Amino acid sequence: MFNFEICFKAPSSKARLGRLTTPHGVVETPAFIFCATKAAIKGATPQDMKREKTQIILSNTYHLMLQPGSDVVAKMGGLHTFMGWDGPMLTDSGGFQIFSLGHGSVAEEVKGKRGTSRPKSLLKIQEEGATFKSYIDGKMHLLTPEKSIQVQRGLGADLIVVLDECTPFHVDKAYTERSLYLSHRWAERSLKEFQKGPSGVQALYGITQGGVYPDLRKIAAEFVNSLPFFGTAVGGSLGADKAQMKEVVEMAMEPLDPSRPVHLLGIGGISDIFYGVTQGIDTFDCVHPTRLARHGGALVPLSVWEELAEDPKGREHLNLRNAHFREDPRPIDASCGCQTCQTFSRSYLHHLLKAGELLAMTALTIHNIHFMNRLLARIRLAIETNTLAEEQKKWMSYP
Amino acid sequence: MFNFEICFKAPSSKARLGRLTTPHGVVETPAFIFCATKAAIKGATPQDMKREKTQIILSNTYHLMLQPGSDVVAKMGGLHTFMGWDGPMLTDSGGFQIFSLGHGSVAEEVKGKRGTSRPKSLLKIQEEGATFKSYIDGKMHLLTPEKSIQVQRGLGADLIVVLDECTPFHVDKAYTERSLYLSHRWAERSLKEFQKGPSGVQALYGITQGGVYPDLRKIAAEFVNSLPFFGTAVGGSLGADKAQMKEVVEMAMEPLDPSRPVHLLGIGGISDIFYGVTQGIDTFDCVHPTRLARHGGALVPLSVWEELAEDPKGREHLNLRNAHFREDPRPIDASCGCQTCQTFSRSYLHHLLKAGELLAMTALTIHNIHFMNRLLARIRLAIETNTLAEEQKKWMSYP
Repeated sequence: MFNFEICFKAPSSKARLGRLTTPHGVVETPAFIFCATKAAIKGATPQDMKREKTQIILSNTYHLMLQPGSDVVAKMGGLHTFMGWDGPMLTDSGGFQIFSLGHGSVAEEVKGKRGTSRPKSLLKIQEEGATFKSYIDGKMHLLTPEKSIQVQRGLGADLIVVLDECTPFHVDKAYTERSLYLSHRWAERSLKEFQKGPSGVQALYGITQGGVYPDLRKIAAEFVNSLPFFGTAVGGSLGADKAQMKEVVEMAMEPLDPSRPVHLLGIGGISDIFYGVTQGIDTFDCVHPTRLARHGGALVPLSVWEELAEDPKGREHLNLRNAHFREDPRPIDASCGCQTCQTFSRSYLHHLLKAGELLAMTALTIHNIHFMNRLLARIRLAIETNTLAEEQKKWMSYP
Repeated sequence: MFNFEICFKAPSSKARLGRLTTPHGVVETPAFIFCATKAAIKGATPQDMKREKTQIILSNTYHLMLQPGSDVVAKMGGLHTFMGWDGPMLTDSGGFQIFSLGHGSVAEEVKGKRGTSRPKSLLKIQEEGATFKSYIDGKMHLLTPEKSIQVQRGLGADLIVVLDECTPFHVDKAYTERSLYLSHRWAERSLKEFQKGPSGVQALYGITQGGVYPDLRKIAAEFVNSLPFFGTAVGGSLGADKAQMKEVVEMAMEPLDPSRPVHLLGIGGISDIFYGVTQGIDTFDCVHPTRLARHGGALVPLSVWEELAEDPKGREHLNLRNAHFREDPRPIDASCGCQTCQTFSRSYLHHLLKAGELLAMTALTIHNIHFMNRLLARIRLAIETNTLAEEQKKWMSYP
């Protein structure tokens, strides 16, 4: 039931077109995976997601194990049935949130917004697993590699991920190296637990760690290549800024088995996606498009800034709270086919934001979802026609 | 472009079936009008509204004149274009909010939750109009009958309403009578202003006032009958409780011209609608179905309580926050055809509410909208087949 086929390789970069087959359908890659953190896309129904051409979503094991509990989801028939999404789905291991809640996401780290200490909810990291306090009721939980796989088995997403320790940026090389080997032992235990279950129902991704250190990234890749994972997720710290992120992604990708699908965890900016694609990344995920929508931001291609006769100065979105949209009768983007752009003007969206109306979040979420799906479809077409560099110039003002 | 045709009169009550024709389509009556207070249904898109069989919505002049301003809406092509709703629409005069913000809605008053004083935002009621402070920026505004019509002309809804003074329940008969005659003078000025505009584009409703006093209700009805309004809205205080509301509606309806469509302002409980229909009410509006949804309440027919083997004790909705829905795999109502009942279980909706997910509001709003449209469709069918009393027993546990 699972397969990853590379349909086309770009002649001048590592970019490729793939078909990732799951029991719930095929994902054409490169693809963007939307975050339904607590088994719901914030501001959109499953019908909205489908209509706006979404291929795949993910949900977070950490949140679901605390509320409603994976046992409840399993009893209700698994995540697909529970949330009314019949397409491909991924869950993460739960580790990322345990380690990152409190010091910020990978994207925030890359943007230099990282904190400097371990989150208070994380109590202990031991050989056995990670002990943490529930953010809901303060109860202690121990997440082990085996437990993570069991929980993800109960949730029933198509693609699941091994437990790893996600190190923040600021730790030194000695810590990163110790952590790398701990993650490797956890990966072996995750795989062993996974192999106890039925085959063909879910597929397991390994994670490559190693922080910003080339030799550790090489060790991590060789390790993950050597085990029979279906896919690889690029995890761990990607550095302190965008420039370092590019270096780290390149060093992480270089030694990876190219026959497996590769997921880049937690990255979703337009420029990051264009860069990742040229490095051979097949899937991306990030809360950015939907979170941005809830704050009044609408993702737009460069043509919109040209129409506005405004320098985007590196911005990838319009802020519809801006008063100069008050009487603008145009849609967010005249070239966009989403339900929101077919229905609402910038003036109306500006009014909804000023008035604090719920519909603002829904309308902008729908637009940003469509935007990401459209962007990735254009990227796939550009890979096929070897015009990725030209395509990129339509979506971002500088590399 | 406007017409109200009475297609069928019930033999044993004042219930009737009508067709209310507007430039934006026909409303089959009795019908429920959903409140898009600030030019948006909270939690649903225009597409959601259409899919769930909504015939007509309303928007509030008071809110729109303050934000974004009727001039902005007019520049953007009027309310229909602005909010992407191409069906029939009503706006109120703006008076209701000026007079009621601060002492609660008609429905709250009937439920005994009314306050005892005029809202602070209302500064003065004079012959000229009502002076109030904007709840947004504290600026002073004077709303006159002429201004209300001008604003509603700019907004461009199909059905518009004269300005009246909406008296709270607790005022005495002397006040109610003085207020009645003021409202009559305002009605004449509203009509005069309305007649200056183009004909056939919008239709004007008069309002019948008179509080809980039979003689005043009669004077009000005779006055409103005597002027060439298209329809009549039943306004003013409907009393202190449900029993008194029934009395007041009956005394208000009795002397009214039966050839005009009659709207009952601000009432939307199931039992109130059944009662209103038997008194000849053609349209109802209330924030209740959509507000209830945002608080986790799903409107249900009696069959759902029977399936749960529970005494509804007069309740008309399920509270999905209730822990006993935690592992309930059934939809809210197996007999309901709404998108939510076709997609989500009670367990999932309970989870969304517990997790504070936006989707809970959207999903329950969609259900409650469908429920109201379905209820009114069943009521129309029951009028036609003279089975209103039997139909009522399927929807409410006591009269």
